[in-house]
Amino acid sequence: MLINDIEKYITVYRDGLLDDIIPFWIRHSIDNEHGGFSFCLDRDGTIIDTDKGVWMQGRFTWILATLYNEVEQRDEWLNMAIHGADFIKKHCFDTDGRMYFLVDQVGNPIRKRRYVFSEAFSCIAFAALYKATGEKEYEKLARELFNVYERHTSQEGLIPPKFTEHRKMKGMGHPMIGIVTAQEMRKNLNDESYTSYIDRWIEEIREDFLNYEYQAVMETVGPGGEFLDHFDGRTLTPGHAIEGAWFIFEEAHIRNEDPELIETGTTMLDWMWEIGWDKEYGGIYYFRDVKGLPVQEYWHDMKFWWPQNETIIATLWAYTLTGDEKYANWHEMIHHWVFKYFPDPEFGEWYGYLHRDGRISSKMKGNVWKGPFHVPRMYLKAWRILERIKLNIK
Amino acid sequence: MLINDIEKYITVYRDGLLDDIIPFWIRHSIDNEHGGFSFCLDRDGTIIDTDKGVWMQGRFTWILATLYNEVEQRDEWLNMAIHGADFIKKHCFDTDGRMYFLVDQVGNPIRKRRYVFSEAFSCIAFAALYKATGEKEYEKLARELFNVYERHTSQEGLIPPKFTEHRKMKGMGHPMIGIVTAQEMRKNLNDESYTSYIDRWIEEIREDFLNYEYQAVMETVGPGGEFLDHFDGRTLTPGHAIEGAWFIFEEAHIRNEDPELIETGTTMLDWMWEIGWDKEYGGIYYFRDVKGLPVQEYWHDMKFWWPQNETIIATLWAYTLTGDEKYANWHEMIHHWVFKYFPDPEFGEWYGYLHRDGRISSKMKGNVWKGPFHVPRMYLKAWRILERIKLNIK
Repeated sequence: MLINDIEKYITVYRDGLLDDIIPFWIRHSIDNEHGGFSFCLDRDGTIIDTDKGVWMQGRFTWILATLYNEVEQRDEWLNMAIHGADFIKKHCFDTDGRMYFLVDQVGNPIRKRRYVFSEAFSCIAFAALYKATGEKEYEKLARELFNVYERHTSQEGLIPPKFTEHRKMKGMGHPMIGIVTAQEMRKNLNDESYTSYIDRWIEEIREDFLNYEYQAVMETVGPGGEFLDHFDGRTLTPGHAIEGAWFIFEEAHIRNEDPELIETGTTMLDWMWEIGWDKEYGGIYYFRDVKGLPVQEYWHDMKFWWPQNETIIATLWAYTLTGDEKYANWHEMIHHWVFKYFPDPEFGEWYGYLHRDGRISSKMKGNVWKGPFHVPRMYLKAWRILERIKLNIK
Repeated sequence: MLINDIEKYITVYRDGLLDDIIPFWIRHSIDNEHGGFSFCLDRDGTIIDTDKGVWMQGRFTWILATLYNEVEQRDEWLNMAIHGADFIKKHCFDTDGRMYFLVDQVGNPIRKRRYVFSEAFSCIAFAALYKATGEKEYEKLARELFNVYERHTSQEGLIPPKFTEHRKMKGMGHPMIGIVTAQEMRKNLNDESYTSYIDRWIEEIREDFLNYEYQAVMETVGPGGEFLDHFDGRTLTPGHAIEGAWFIFEEAHIRNEDPELIETGTTMLDWMWEIGWDKEYGGIYYFRDVKGLPVQEYWHDMKFWWPQNETIIATLWAYTLTGDEKYANWHEMIHHWVFKYFPDPEFGEWYGYLHRDGRISSKMKGNVWKGPFHVPRMYLKAWRILERIKLNIK
């Protein structure tokens, strides 16, 4: 049925990206006075907080440069990506080479956090801009930020732990974001040396986060992959695990449809679809307990935008790589649910925060966490995967 | 109508406290093997996490000692309070005089946080145990912890700020918890010197947190009470503000129904009932934006147990002190809503986490945040306030 509807799906994703999602953010978020982007937006695009989240400055810069590199060389996209990079360079770095988490409208630092995701998302922005422009400064910044990310996530103690030595823990986020960051570096800097990092992080996920006893991708484990039978250790984040699955699917594709990588990705997707898909209301839950016990985090059963985005990409990759109709069916299920509840037909883009049953919890379009990243990345990836499937049919 | 139903209400609160709430926790949470209490409980009281939150070790110890001091001198209550205090003394202090936030089953420290609420809740536990036993060690510990709390909440920089110097902020929690902590010290140590702290903290709330322009009790302001027009500065926590209102009502009562204190308390309650009461579904919201804009915190429209507990106490105090039937009506509204949705008739105690419309989000009875504190304190306070009203009728 995916095959029969392929032109319809391509239209939804391609036109949605180019005519709805990207124009919404260009219309509302460019700060021509102070630089950078304002992403804290009400339903209609009105700015409700002038603060600027650093994750999202890097992420939109990456999206714009990637559209320029991979869709069409529009000057508008390149110029806005450079506009984002200028603000990041000028205002988002601390003097120690680390980056801030939040700055204000004019670029004063407001908050710095322990972890290094501002660095990872600016890294991929600079890498994509290097590809677009050939400017050596972007390459240098990208390499430096990759090194900060790699060092902080591999050397114990560089990121101050939240818990004491009596409860050592590590999270899926580090190897998972590591994989996609290294993939972007390899592609845009044309540097195969990043493959070794990808190998290492995939191996870490396989060894320490895939739990065959519970048939689950763990979110938090002990330093050697130990199961921690506490709230934090049992709490699964299906959206994260499924996002990790499609990073591995992409790697499988890059490596001539490597069967072992496909197997790892489908294992992760199969387990976490079973755990994460809400069989009563549809959509992917935010958190689940690996033993089916209550989750301590309050919003555990809400439907956020990004786990749905990641699942659409993952099901399409799984179908492409395996030909298994199960994945085409899963794609159809989540596509149907998502497009029923998330898009805002009046003002454009998506709501981000739905209750379990699809009712809207908050109408805001952007904040420190939600902005032009998971949604446009999904539209772009889904469109491109479907184009590939279409070519293979012919 | 409250007057007509007063015996019915007294029965609900008194018998609920003594026959349901306290027995539930005694039945399930005493750790006779390792000491202290295990509060992370599933619906039926099964332990789902053996970790021990330090806030709640102090809070249950306080509840037990307070029942002994103010309800009935049952040895069982006193012995269990001492059991709690022993664990706190032995396992919950760091070497710097500060306390941990979370320890494991046997008492190893798992997490320490920036702020000093473990200290405030252990302070009131030791103060109540001093009253119960006359043991000087408890008095000494209570005084030391009060000093830690007072010093850390008044000297800038002792609690490391989350944000930079470009966004200095302070929260309602500090003066609010300060007031009730000093009230407990004054009562149980019979030491009037604590009144000066209460005066200072009430003045800080009046000056810096009561916003007459928006008719709201702010949760977070600048160091001099400045309105911060960002997500954090606009986010209100009605349950917190209403809890602060009843601490001030108690102070008004202690000071011979002081009219200015009553006025401050009713102002806070009136504003935050208007903002916090859900006119569509009933119950008190978790967060609201002071301008009616979207709130960034995900669980903003959920109905947690504790804001309802605090509102029941506050409406009863307001009715007692003013005789205004409006408050008796509000009490009836929230009492009716709360007793329809929160109590678990099968296994006892309350659910803690409901969706906006009263549907259950999580069936767990306890975790690091929920335990025997707000619920039994409400039953005890409500019962005692109603007894006072009954005496005045006669």
